[in-house]
Amino acid sequence: MAGKIFTENYKISNFETNIHGTITLQYILDVIIKASEDQSDILNRSTEKVQEDGVTWVVIQYDVDIKRLPVAGEDVKLQTQGVSYTKSFADRRFWIRDMNDNILVEVKSLWVMMNLTTRKMVRIPDEAVEPYGSEKVKRLERLHKLHNYDAESAETMKLPVTFNDIDFNGHVSNTHYINWMTDVLSFDFQSNNVPTGFSIKFEDEVRYGDDVTSGANLIDDGKTSVHQIMVDGKARSTAEITWKKLTKRVK
Amino acid sequence: MAGKIFTENYKISNFETNIHGTITLQYILDVIIKASEDQSDILNRSTEKVQEDGVTWVVIQYDVDIKRLPVAGEDVKLQTQGVSYTKSFADRRFWIRDMNDNILVEVKSLWVMMNLTTRKMVRIPDEAVEPYGSEKVKRLERLHKLHNYDAESAETMKLPVTFNDIDFNGHVSNTHYINWMTDVLSFDFQSNNVPTGFSIKFEDEVRYGDDVTSGANLIDDGKTSVHQIMVDGKARSTAEITWKKLTKRVK
Repeated sequence: MAGKIFTENYKISNFETNIHGTITLQYILDVIIKASEDQSDILNRSTEKVQEDGVTWVVIQYDVDIKRLPVAGEDVKLQTQGVSYTKSFADRRFWIRDMNDNILVEVKSLWVMMNLTTRKMVRIPDEAVEPYGSEKVKRLERLHKLHNYDAESAETMKLPVTFNDIDFNGHVSNTHYINWMTDVLSFDFQSNNVPTGFSIKFEDEVRYGDDVTSGANLIDDGKTSVHQIMVDGKARSTAEITWKKLTKRVK
Repeated sequence: MAGKIFTENYKISNFETNIHGTITLQYILDVIIKASEDQSDILNRSTEKVQEDGVTWVVIQYDVDIKRLPVAGEDVKLQTQGVSYTKSFADRRFWIRDMNDNILVEVKSLWVMMNLTTRKMVRIPDEAVEPYGSEKVKRLERLHKLHNYDAESAETMKLPVTFNDIDFNGHVSNTHYINWMTDVLSFDFQSNNVPTGFSIKFEDEVRYGDDVTSGANLIDDGKTSVHQIMVDGKARSTAEITWKKLTKRVK
Protein backbone atom coordinates (compact mmCIF):
# COMPACT_ATOMS: atom_id res chain seq x y z
CA MET A 1 0.00 0.00 0.00
CA ALA A 2 1.34 3.44 -0.88
CA GLY A 3 0.22 6.71 0.68
CA LYS A 4 -2.35 8.79 -1.20
CA ILE A 5 -0.87 11.83 -2.90
CA PHE A 6 -2.91 14.96 -2.27
CA THR A 7 -2.52 17.83 -4.75
CA GLU A 8 -3.84 21.40 -4.73
CA ASN A 9 -3.06 24.51 -6.72
CA TYR A 10 -1.64 27.56 -5.01
CA LYS A 11 -0.52 30.99 -6.15
CA ILE A 12 2.52 32.51 -4.45
CA SER A 13 1.68 36.05 -3.26
CA ASN A 14 4.09 38.97 -3.26
CA PHE A 15 3.84 39.13 0.52
CA GLU A 16 5.24 35.59 0.75
CA THR A 17 8.43 36.64 -1.03
CA ASN A 18 11.50 38.64 -0.08
CA ILE A 19 13.91 41.03 -1.78
CA HIS A 20 14.81 38.28 -4.30
CA GLY A 21 11.15 38.05 -5.32
CA THR A 22 11.18 34.38 -4.21
CA ILE A 23 9.27 32.64 -1.44
CA THR A 24 10.85 32.85 2.03
CA LEU A 25 11.85 29.69 3.92
CA GLN A 26 9.09 30.25 6.46
CA TYR A 27 6.42 30.39 3.77
CA ILE A 28 7.74 27.18 2.16
CA LEU A 29 6.88 25.45 5.45
CA ASP A 30 3.62 27.40 5.84
CA VAL A 31 2.28 26.43 2.41
CA ILE A 32 3.27 22.75 2.59
CA ILE A 33 1.66 22.47 6.04
CA LYS A 34 -1.43 24.12 4.56
CA ALA A 35 -1.51 21.32 1.96
CA SER A 36 -1.38 18.61 4.63
CA GLU A 37 -4.05 20.39 6.69
CA ASP A 38 -6.26 20.54 3.61
CA GLN A 39 -5.67 16.82 2.96
CA SER A 40 -6.50 16.03 6.60
CA ASP A 41 -9.70 18.11 6.45
CA ILE A 42 -10.88 16.17 3.39
CA LEU A 43 -10.08 12.86 5.13
CA ASN A 44 -11.90 14.10 8.23
CA ARG A 45 -8.66 13.96 10.24
CA SER A 46 -8.27 17.69 11.01
CA THR A 47 -6.07 18.75 13.95
CA GLU A 48 -9.23 19.44 16.02
CA LYS A 49 -10.50 15.94 15.25
CA VAL A 50 -7.18 14.27 16.11
CA GLN A 51 -6.95 16.26 19.35
CA GLU A 52 -10.36 14.94 20.44
CA ASP A 53 -8.51 11.69 21.18
CA GLY A 54 -6.09 13.57 23.46
CA VAL A 55 -3.15 13.38 21.03
CA THR A 56 -1.56 15.59 18.41
CA TRP A 57 0.99 15.28 15.59
CA VAL A 58 4.36 16.90 16.27
CA VAL A 59 7.03 17.44 13.64
CA ILE A 60 10.58 16.38 14.53
CA GLN A 61 12.45 17.36 11.39
CA TYR A 62 12.06 18.76 7.87
CA ASP A 63 14.66 18.13 5.14
CA VAL A 64 14.03 20.62 2.35
CA ASP A 65 15.67 20.34 -1.05
CA ILE A 66 15.26 23.42 -3.24
CA LYS A 67 15.70 23.04 -7.01
CA ARG A 68 14.29 26.51 -7.69
CA LEU A 69 12.45 28.85 -5.32
CA PRO A 70 8.93 29.71 -6.51
CA VAL A 71 8.59 33.39 -7.45
CA ALA A 72 5.99 36.05 -6.60
CA GLY A 73 2.80 35.52 -8.57
CA GLU A 74 3.75 31.98 -9.66
CA ASP A 75 1.07 29.31 -9.85
CA VAL A 76 2.31 26.08 -8.31
CA LYS A 77 1.03 22.67 -7.24
CA LEU A 78 1.35 21.73 -3.59
CA GLN A 79 1.55 18.00 -2.97
CA THR A 80 1.79 15.85 0.11
CA GLN A 81 1.87 12.15 0.92
CA GLY A 82 1.89 10.23 4.19
CA VAL A 83 4.34 7.67 2.90
CA SER A 84 4.94 5.22 5.74
CA TYR A 85 5.07 4.82 9.50
CA THR A 86 6.49 2.66 12.28
CA LYS A 87 5.04 2.30 15.76
CA SER A 88 6.64 5.60 16.81
CA PHE A 89 7.42 7.65 13.70
CA ALA A 90 5.66 8.76 10.52
CA ASP A 91 7.29 9.83 7.25
CA ARG A 92 5.46 12.54 5.28
CA ARG A 93 6.67 13.98 1.97
CA PHE A 94 5.82 17.27 0.31
CA TRP A 95 6.46 18.73 -3.12
CA ILE A 96 6.03 22.16 -4.63
CA ARG A 97 5.84 21.69 -8.42
CA ASP A 98 5.48 24.10 -11.29
CA MET A 99 2.36 23.73 -13.47
CA ASN A 100 4.32 21.37 -15.77
CA ASP A 101 4.93 19.05 -12.81
CA ASN A 102 8.62 19.85 -12.48
CA ILE A 103 9.74 19.64 -8.86
CA LEU A 104 10.70 23.03 -7.41
CA VAL A 105 10.94 22.02 -3.75
CA GLU A 106 10.98 18.53 -2.22
CA VAL A 107 10.52 17.95 1.50
CA LYS A 108 10.96 14.90 3.69
CA SER A 109 9.64 15.10 7.22
CA LEU A 110 9.45 13.02 10.36
CA TRP A 111 6.52 13.15 12.80
CA VAL A 112 5.57 11.67 16.14
CA MET A 113 2.33 11.58 18.04
CA MET A 114 2.22 13.26 21.44
CA ASN A 115 -0.20 12.85 24.32
CA LEU A 116 -1.63 16.33 24.99
CA THR A 117 -1.77 15.83 28.76
CA THR A 118 1.52 14.07 29.51
CA ARG A 119 3.35 15.78 26.56
CA LYS A 120 5.01 12.38 25.97
CA MET A 121 5.33 10.48 22.70
CA VAL A 122 2.75 7.75 22.17
CA ARG A 123 2.48 4.77 19.87
CA ILE A 124 0.90 5.80 16.53
CA PRO A 125 -2.51 4.10 16.28
CA ASP A 126 -3.14 2.45 12.88
CA GLU A 127 -6.51 4.29 12.63
CA ALA A 128 -4.65 7.63 12.73
CA VAL A 129 -2.74 6.92 9.53
CA GLU A 130 -5.09 4.52 7.69
CA PRO A 131 -7.08 7.30 5.96
CA TYR A 132 -3.84 8.50 4.32
CA GLY A 133 -3.03 5.04 2.98
CA SER A 134 0.41 5.12 4.63
CA GLU A 135 2.39 1.90 4.68
CA LYS A 136 3.37 0.30 8.00
CA VAL A 137 7.10 -0.46 7.97
CA LYS A 138 9.75 -1.70 10.39
CA ARG A 139 12.15 1.16 9.91
CA LEU A 140 12.12 4.61 8.29
CA GLU A 141 14.79 6.17 6.11
CA ARG A 142 17.08 8.34 8.25
CA LEU A 143 16.82 12.09 7.76
CA HIS A 144 19.81 14.38 7.35
CA LYS A 145 22.31 14.47 10.24
CA LEU A 146 23.02 18.12 10.98
CA HIS A 147 26.43 19.69 11.59
CA ASN A 148 27.11 20.63 15.19
CA TYR A 149 26.29 24.20 16.12
CA ASP A 150 29.33 25.94 17.57
CA ALA A 151 28.20 28.39 20.25
CA GLU A 152 31.74 29.76 20.64
CA SER A 153 32.07 31.17 17.14
CA ALA A 154 28.39 32.00 16.59
CA GLU A 155 26.86 35.34 15.77
CA THR A 156 23.76 35.75 17.93
CA MET A 157 20.78 38.03 18.29
CA LYS A 158 17.89 38.26 20.74
CA LEU A 159 14.41 38.03 19.30
CA PRO A 160 11.07 38.74 20.96
CA VAL A 161 8.29 36.13 20.81
CA THR A 162 5.18 38.11 19.93
CA PHE A 163 1.43 37.49 20.07
CA ASN A 164 1.41 37.15 16.30
CA ASP A 165 3.85 34.23 16.55
CA ILE A 166 1.18 32.19 18.36
CA ASP A 167 -1.15 29.93 16.41
CA PHE A 168 -4.70 28.73 17.07
CA ASN A 169 -3.25 25.97 19.29
CA GLY A 170 -1.78 28.56 21.63
CA HIS A 171 1.79 27.60 20.63
CA VAL A 172 4.46 29.54 18.79
CA SER A 173 4.20 28.54 15.12
CA ASN A 174 7.34 26.50 14.54
CA THR A 175 7.50 27.68 10.92
CA HIS A 176 8.61 31.03 12.41
CA TYR A 177 11.84 29.50 13.79
CA ILE A 178 13.48 29.32 10.38
CA ASN A 179 13.01 33.07 9.88
CA TRP A 180 14.44 33.78 13.34
CA MET A 181 17.42 31.68 12.27
CA THR A 182 18.11 33.51 9.01
CA ASP A 183 17.55 36.89 10.73
CA VAL A 184 21.04 36.56 12.23
CA LEU A 185 22.74 36.41 8.83
CA SER A 186 23.82 39.77 7.47
CA PHE A 187 21.87 41.70 4.84
CA ASP A 188 24.87 41.39 2.58
CA PHE A 189 25.07 37.63 2.90
CA GLN A 190 21.36 37.15 2.34
CA SER A 191 21.20 39.43 -0.67
CA ASN A 192 24.21 37.75 -2.31
CA ASN A 193 23.29 34.15 -1.55
CA VAL A 194 20.16 32.09 -2.06
CA PRO A 195 19.25 28.92 -0.16
CA THR A 196 19.47 25.59 -2.00
CA GLY A 197 18.07 23.60 0.90
CA PHE A 198 17.74 23.31 4.65
CA SER A 199 17.14 20.84 7.45
CA ILE A 200 15.47 21.91 10.65
CA LYS A 201 15.10 19.83 13.81
CA PHE A 202 12.66 20.66 16.58
CA GLU A 203 13.88 19.74 20.05
CA ASP A 204 11.50 21.59 22.34
CA GLU A 205 8.77 24.20 22.11
CA VAL A 206 9.31 27.95 22.33
CA ARG A 207 6.68 29.62 24.48
CA TYR A 208 5.28 33.14 24.68
CA GLY A 209 7.42 35.18 27.07
CA ASP A 210 10.54 33.10 26.32
CA ASP A 211 13.74 35.03 25.87
CA VAL A 212 14.88 33.70 22.49
CA THR A 213 18.46 33.83 21.25
CA SER A 214 19.12 32.92 17.65
CA GLY A 215 22.67 31.97 16.73
CA ALA A 216 24.44 31.11 13.49
CA ASN A 217 27.81 29.81 12.25
CA LEU A 218 28.93 30.08 8.67
CA ILE A 219 31.01 27.04 7.69
CA ASP A 220 32.24 25.41 4.52
CA ASP A 221 33.38 28.71 2.94
CA GLY A 222 29.98 30.31 3.49
CA LYS A 223 28.20 27.54 1.60
CA THR A 224 26.54 26.24 4.78
CA SER A 225 25.12 27.98 7.83
CA VAL A 226 24.38 26.16 11.09
CA HIS A 227 21.71 27.61 13.35
CA GLN A 228 20.30 27.25 16.79
CA ILE A 229 17.34 28.75 18.64
CA MET A 230 18.02 28.85 22.35
CA VAL A 231 16.01 29.70 25.45
CA ASP A 232 17.91 29.92 28.76
CA GLY A 233 20.95 28.49 27.02
CA LYS A 234 19.11 25.33 25.91
CA ALA A 235 18.53 24.39 22.26
CA ARG A 236 14.92 24.43 21.15
CA SER A 237 15.65 23.97 17.45
CA THR A 238 18.71 23.41 15.26
CA ALA A 239 19.05 23.89 11.52
CA GLU A 240 21.47 23.78 8.65
CA ILE A 241 21.00 25.81 5.48
CA THR A 242 22.99 25.42 2.27
CA TRP A 243 23.59 28.46 0.07
CA LYS A 244 24.53 29.30 -3.48
CA LYS A 245 26.30 32.56 -4.33
CA LEU A 246 24.44 34.74 -6.80
CA THR A 247 26.53 35.73 -9.78
CA LYS A 248 24.62 39.00 -9.97
CA ARG A 249 23.70 41.06 -6.93
CA VAL A 250 19.96 41.72 -6.52
CA LYS A 251 19.83 45.34 -5.38
CA MET B 1 -17.40 57.44 -14.40
CA ALA B 2 -17.04 55.04 -11.50
CA GLY B 3 -13.95 52.96 -10.75
CA LYS B 4 -13.97 49.35 -11.92
CA ILE B 5 -14.49 46.87 -9.11
CA PHE B 6 -12.04 43.98 -9.26
CA THR B 7 -13.02 40.75 -7.46
CA GLU B 8 -11.08 37.56 -6.78
CA ASN B 9 -11.64 34.57 -4.53
CA TYR B 10 -9.23 33.82 -1.73
CA LYS B 11 -9.01 31.19 1.00
CA ILE B 12 -7.67 32.27 4.40
CA SER B 13 -4.88 29.89 5.48
CA ASN B 14 -4.26 28.80 9.06
CA PHE B 15 -0.88 30.50 8.95
CA GLU B 16 -2.58 33.85 8.33
CA THR B 17 -4.51 33.56 11.59
CA ASN B 18 -3.64 33.91 15.27
CA ILE B 19 -4.71 32.31 18.56
CA HIS B 20 -8.31 33.45 17.91
CA GLY B 21 -8.31 31.50 14.63
CA THR B 22 -8.97 34.79 12.80
CA ILE B 23 -6.85 36.67 10.27
CA THR B 24 -4.19 38.98 11.76
CA LEU B 25 -4.22 42.72 11.02
CA GLN B 26 -1.06 42.40 8.93
CA TYR B 27 -2.58 39.75 6.70
CA ILE B 28 -5.73 41.88 6.18
CA LEU B 29 -3.44 44.46 4.58
CA ASP B 30 -1.37 41.79 2.77
CA VAL B 31 -4.39 40.18 1.11
CA ILE B 32 -6.10 43.43 0.07
CA ILE B 33 -2.84 44.68 -1.44
CA LYS B 34 -2.57 41.37 -3.24
CA ALA B 35 -6.01 42.07 -4.78
CA SER B 36 -4.93 45.51 -6.02
CA GLU B 37 -1.67 44.07 -7.40
CA ASP B 38 -3.65 41.41 -9.24
CA GLN B 39 -6.00 44.08 -10.65
CA SER B 40 -2.99 46.17 -11.73
CA ASP B 41 -1.36 43.15 -13.42
CA ILE B 42 -4.51 42.51 -15.45
CA LEU B 43 -4.69 46.19 -16.43
CA ASN B 44 -1.00 46.07 -17.36
CA ARG B 45 -0.19 48.61 -14.62
CA SER B 46 2.01 46.44 -12.37
CA THR B 47 4.39 48.12 -9.92
CA GLU B 48 7.32 47.29 -12.27
CA LYS B 49 5.46 48.93 -15.17
CA VAL B 50 4.58 52.05 -13.17
CA GLN B 51 8.17 52.34 -11.92
CA GLU B 52 9.45 52.37 -15.52
CA ASP B 53 8.16 55.97 -15.58
CA GLY B 54 10.31 56.80 -12.53
CA VAL B 55 7.35 56.99 -10.14
CA THR B 56 5.63 54.71 -7.63
CA TRP B 57 2.39 54.60 -5.64
CA VAL B 58 2.78 55.24 -1.91
CA VAL B 59 0.05 54.65 0.65
CA ILE B 60 -0.60 57.44 3.17
CA GLN B 61 -3.37 55.92 5.26
CA TYR B 62 -5.67 52.91 5.61
CA ASP B 63 -8.99 53.11 7.51
CA VAL B 64 -10.12 49.57 8.22
CA ASP B 65 -13.61 48.75 9.46
CA ILE B 66 -14.03 45.16 10.68
CA LYS B 67 -17.55 43.71 10.84
CA ARG B 68 -16.22 40.19 11.40
CA LEU B 69 -12.69 38.86 11.04
CA PRO B 70 -12.38 36.08 8.45
CA VAL B 71 -11.49 32.74 10.04
CA ALA B 72 -8.90 30.07 9.17
CA GLY B 73 -9.98 28.05 6.15
CA GLU B 74 -12.72 30.52 5.15
CA ASP B 75 -13.33 31.24 1.46
CA VAL B 76 -13.76 34.95 0.88
CA LYS B 77 -13.98 37.45 -1.96
CA LEU B 78 -11.35 40.16 -2.13
CA GLN B 79 -12.50 43.33 -3.88
CA THR B 80 -10.85 46.61 -4.76
CA GLN B 81 -11.81 49.79 -6.58
CA GLY B 82 -9.84 52.87 -7.52
CA VAL B 83 -12.73 55.19 -6.72
CA SER B 84 -11.52 58.71 -7.45
CA TYR B 85 -8.51 60.99 -7.52
CA THR B 86 -7.43 64.63 -7.40
CA LYS B 87 -4.21 66.04 -8.80
CA SER B 88 -2.31 64.84 -5.73
CA PHE B 89 -4.29 62.07 -4.04
CA ALA B 90 -6.06 58.86 -5.00
CA ASP B 91 -8.84 57.10 -3.08
CA ARG B 92 -8.85 53.30 -3.24
CA ARG B 93 -11.39 51.07 -1.50
CA PHE B 94 -11.14 47.41 -0.57
CA TRP B 95 -13.62 44.86 0.71
CA ILE B 96 -13.30 41.37 2.10
CA ARG B 97 -16.71 39.69 1.68
CA ASP B 98 -18.03 36.27 2.57
CA MET B 99 -19.22 34.07 -0.31
CA ASN B 100 -22.77 35.48 0.16
CA ASP B 101 -21.39 38.97 -0.49
CA ASN B 102 -21.74 40.17 3.10
CA ILE B 103 -19.03 42.67 3.97
CA LEU B 104 -16.55 41.33 6.54
CA VAL B 105 -13.92 44.05 6.25
CA GLU B 106 -14.16 47.43 4.51
CA VAL B 107 -11.09 49.56 3.84
CA LYS B 108 -10.67 53.14 2.66
CA SER B 109 -7.19 54.23 1.65
CA LEU B 110 -5.34 57.28 0.44
CA TRP B 111 -2.42 57.17 -1.98
CA VAL B 112 0.07 59.56 -3.55
CA MET B 113 2.53 59.18 -6.35
CA MET B 114 6.21 59.64 -5.56
CA ASN B 115 9.16 60.34 -7.83
CA LEU B 116 11.63 57.49 -7.26
CA THR B 117 14.69 59.73 -7.61
CA THR B 118 13.67 62.85 -5.69
CA ARG B 119 11.42 60.86 -3.23
CA LYS B 120 8.96 63.80 -3.57
CA MET B 121 5.24 63.69 -4.31
CA VAL B 122 4.30 64.32 -7.92
CA ARG B 123 1.07 65.22 -9.71
CA ILE B 124 -0.92 62.06 -10.56
CA PRO B 125 -0.96 61.69 -14.36
CA ASP B 126 -4.43 60.91 -15.76
CA GLU B 127 -2.93 57.94 -17.70
CA ALA B 128 -1.89 56.33 -14.40
CA VAL B 129 -5.46 56.04 -13.14
CA GLU B 130 -7.46 55.84 -16.40
CA PRO B 131 -7.19 52.02 -16.70
CA TYR B 132 -8.94 51.73 -13.31
CA GLY B 133 -11.85 53.95 -14.40
CA SER B 134 -11.30 56.24 -11.39
CA GLU B 135 -13.21 59.51 -11.35
CA LYS B 136 -11.32 62.81 -11.30
CA VAL B 137 -12.69 64.98 -8.49
CA LYS B 138 -11.84 68.31 -6.83
CA ARG B 139 -11.65 66.99 -3.31
CA LEU B 140 -11.54 63.62 -1.58
CA GLU B 141 -13.42 62.52 1.50
CA ARG B 142 -11.25 62.99 4.61
CA LEU B 143 -9.96 59.87 6.29
CA HIS B 144 -10.10 59.27 10.03
CA LYS B 145 -8.24 61.76 12.23
CA LEU B 146 -6.20 59.76 14.72
CA HIS B 147 -5.90 60.42 18.48
CA ASN B 148 -2.58 61.84 19.57
CA TYR B 149 0.01 59.33 20.70
CA ASP B 150 1.20 60.12 24.21
CA ALA B 151 4.88 59.20 24.50
CA GLU B 152 4.87 59.93 28.25
CA SER B 153 2.39 57.24 29.23
CA ALA B 154 3.25 54.74 26.50
CA GLU B 155 4.44 51.18 26.88
CA THR B 156 7.29 50.63 24.44
CA MET B 157 9.39 47.84 23.05
CA LYS B 158 12.37 47.63 20.69
CA LEU B 159 11.96 45.53 17.57
CA PRO B 160 14.57 44.41 15.07
CA VAL B 161 14.07 45.05 11.35
CA THR B 162 15.00 41.78 9.67
CA PHE B 163 15.84 40.67 6.15
CA ASN B 164 12.45 38.98 5.94
CA ASP B 165 10.74 42.34 6.52
CA ILE B 166 12.11 43.59 3.21
CA ASP B 167 10.05 43.25 0.04
CA PHE B 168 11.07 42.93 -3.62
CA ASN B 169 11.38 46.73 -3.79
CA GLY B 170 14.13 46.66 -1.18
CA HIS B 171 11.89 48.41 1.39
CA VAL B 172 10.45 47.22 4.67
CA SER B 173 6.92 45.96 3.91
CA ASN B 174 4.69 48.55 5.56
CA THR B 175 2.07 45.89 6.29
CA HIS B 176 4.52 44.65 8.96
CA TYR B 177 4.17 47.90 10.95
CA ILE B 178 0.72 47.02 12.26
CA ASN B 179 2.05 43.78 13.79
CA TRP B 180 4.95 45.65 15.38
CA MET B 181 2.34 47.95 16.86
CA THR B 182 0.16 45.24 18.38
CA ASP B 183 3.26 43.38 19.63
CA VAL B 184 3.47 45.91 22.47
CA LEU B 185 0.03 45.02 23.83
CA SER B 186 0.05 42.31 26.48
CA PHE B 187 -0.84 38.70 25.77
CA ASP B 188 -3.72 39.06 28.20
CA PHE B 189 -5.13 42.10 26.44
CA GLN B 190 -4.84 40.53 23.00
CA SER B 191 -6.39 37.24 24.02
CA ASN B 192 -9.34 38.95 25.74
CA ASN B 193 -10.02 41.61 23.10
CA VAL B 194 -10.53 41.51 19.35
CA PRO B 195 -10.04 44.42 16.96
CA THR B 196 -13.13 46.05 15.44
CA GLY B 197 -11.14 48.40 13.22
CA PHE B 198 -7.96 50.38 12.81
CA SER B 199 -6.48 53.38 11.06
CA ILE B 200 -2.82 53.51 10.18
CA LYS B 201 -0.92 56.50 8.81
CA PHE B 202 2.49 56.24 7.17
CA GLU B 203 4.74 59.22 7.76
CA ASP B 204 8.15 58.00 6.69
CA GLU B 205 9.81 54.75 5.68
CA VAL B 206 11.50 52.32 8.05
CA ARG B 207 14.79 51.04 6.66
CA TYR B 208 16.88 47.93 7.26
CA GLY B 209 19.23 48.58 10.15
CA ASP B 210 16.86 51.09 11.76
CA ASP B 211 16.46 50.84 15.51
CA VAL B 212 12.66 50.58 15.78
CA THR B 213 10.70 51.42 18.91
CA SER B 214 7.04 50.53 18.98
CA GLY B 215 4.89 52.34 21.55
CA ALA B 216 1.26 52.07 22.62
CA ASN B 217 -1.26 53.87 24.84
CA LEU B 218 -4.53 52.32 25.92
CA ILE B 219 -7.25 54.97 26.15
CA ASP B 220 -11.03 55.08 26.36
CA ASP B 221 -11.22 52.33 29.02
CA GLY B 222 -9.17 49.94 26.92
CA LYS B 223 -11.51 50.25 23.95
CA THR B 224 -8.90 52.12 21.87
CA SER B 225 -5.15 51.78 21.55
CA VAL B 226 -2.95 54.47 20.00
CA HIS B 227 0.34 53.39 18.48
CA GLN B 228 3.51 54.81 17.10
CA ILE B 229 6.54 53.34 15.34
CA MET B 230 9.60 55.49 15.99
CA VAL B 231 13.16 55.56 14.72
CA ASP B 232 15.60 57.91 16.47
CA GLY B 233 12.66 59.40 18.36
CA LYS B 234 10.82 60.37 15.15
CA ALA B 235 7.43 58.95 14.15
CA ARG B 236 7.45 56.76 11.05
CA SER B 237 3.88 55.53 11.41
CA THR B 238 0.94 56.16 13.74
CA ALA B 239 -2.15 54.05 14.26
CA GLU B 240 -5.32 53.72 16.28
CA ILE B 241 -7.03 50.38 16.90
CA THR B 242 -10.49 49.90 18.38
CA TRP B 243 -11.20 46.79 20.46
CA LYS B 244 -14.14 44.76 21.69
CA LYS B 245 -13.89 42.69 24.87
CA LEU B 246 -14.58 39.00 24.38
CA THR B 247 -17.25 37.65 26.68
CA LYS B 248 -15.48 34.30 26.69
CA ARG B 249 -11.72 33.91 26.97
CA VAL B 250 -10.11 32.03 24.06
CA LYS B 251 -7.56 29.82 25.79
